[in-house]
Amino acid sequence: MELYSGYINKLVDELAALPGIGNKSAQRLAFHLIGMPEAKVRRLANSMIEAKANVRYCSKCFTLTDSDLCPICSKANRNHRLIMVVENSRDLAAYEKTGKFEGVYHVLHGAISPMTGIGPGDIKIKELVERCADDVDEVILATNSSLEGETTAMYISKLLKPMGIKVTRIASGVPVGGDLEYIDEVTLTRALDGRVEI
Amino acid sequence: MELYSGYINKLVDELAALPGIGNKSAQRLAFHLIGMPEAKVRRLANSMIEAKANVRYCSKCFTLTDSDLCPICSKANRNHRLIMVVENSRDLAAYEKTGKFEGVYHVLHGAISPMTGIGPGDIKIKELVERCADDVDEVILATNSSLEGETTAMYISKLLKPMGIKVTRIASGVPVGGDLEYIDEVTLTRALDGRVEI
Repeated sequence: MELYSGYINKLVDELAALPGIGNKSAQRLAFHLIGMPEAKVRRLANSMIEAKANVRYCSKCFTLTDSDLCPICSKANRNHRLIMVVENSRDLAAYEKTGKFEGVYHVLHGAISPMTGIGPGDIKIKELVERCADDVDEVILATNSSLEGETTAMYISKLLKPMGIKVTRIASGVPVGGDLEYIDEVTLTRALDGRVEI
Repeated sequence: MELYSGYINKLVDELAALPGIGNKSAQRLAFHLIGMPEAKVRRLANSMIEAKANVRYCSKCFTLTDSDLCPICSKANRNHRLIMVVENSRDLAAYEKTGKFEGVYHVLHGAISPMTGIGPGDIKIKELVERCADDVDEVILATNSSLEGETTAMYISKLLKPMGIKVTRIASGVPVGGDLEYIDEVTLTRALDGRVEI
């Protein structure tokens, strides 16, 4: 859009390249940023650069952190023999928010997806197997219940079971508060198959 | 969320303070930024700082630009005697995209809103009146058709009409492609009042 200025156009284009931000929101954001006090804009810009420069993977579980070990892996009162495998740090955050899990995590940073060319070697599976050489009681597979997540879970379980490790998968079924009539058939079938006696 | 790192939390908080970005999207954006190549993050951060530092108001129409006069005000082949008054630069962009307007603009940067304490002196009304001291044939009021936009349009028309300037207001009515049954009564009434013979 030649009607603005080169600086605005450049900013709009770069904002629009971020996930979940369309052209309209990028424009709105750009104008908002220009209207913000300069100190605030600099602070946001610096936060981005600093986060990028300082955040790295936890050397044990591979979640994003700014020290060698993440806060969870460094805690003595977590059960380090119980590992929950998740696809990314956001999933870790989601489970951590429940406050119900006392073990530690392993972040794969993706899932096996032959469609997009992501193989077992592209995500942190080798590192998980290495961790499991130490004392581990149980590995809970909490990858998404998508095709990729299921494939990844199957793949990992086939690697770990021969090592004598108990491998479990989080339950899939009807979400709490979900209205049956709006739930897809695959989920309903899963919920039926996974029924438990009460 | 203590489970991430200080750097991530800070970035998430600052992103979540932007308009239209909730906590979840801020988190998603932050992780995306951290996953981006460092050069790209620096480029985005710099674009923000540069846009903030270099973008200013056009000295004539007050839209955002990076030179003294915006591209529209500097064009000789636009009708400089026909001024469309809009609330902000995004509205200017919306009209400019139609490609149907050959005049120039005047950006108010807001609308009169007694509820939030924005008076006529807080927006670029004085500057519009000054512009109108030169040769101007018509001023088209294209403020929003909200209470604030209407109030602003009324206020401006009362200032300009005594100066012998033709003042018009963009039509309000049923949007093209709009389904009557879903349109509010005020709009329907407006459309009726503004009916034209065919």
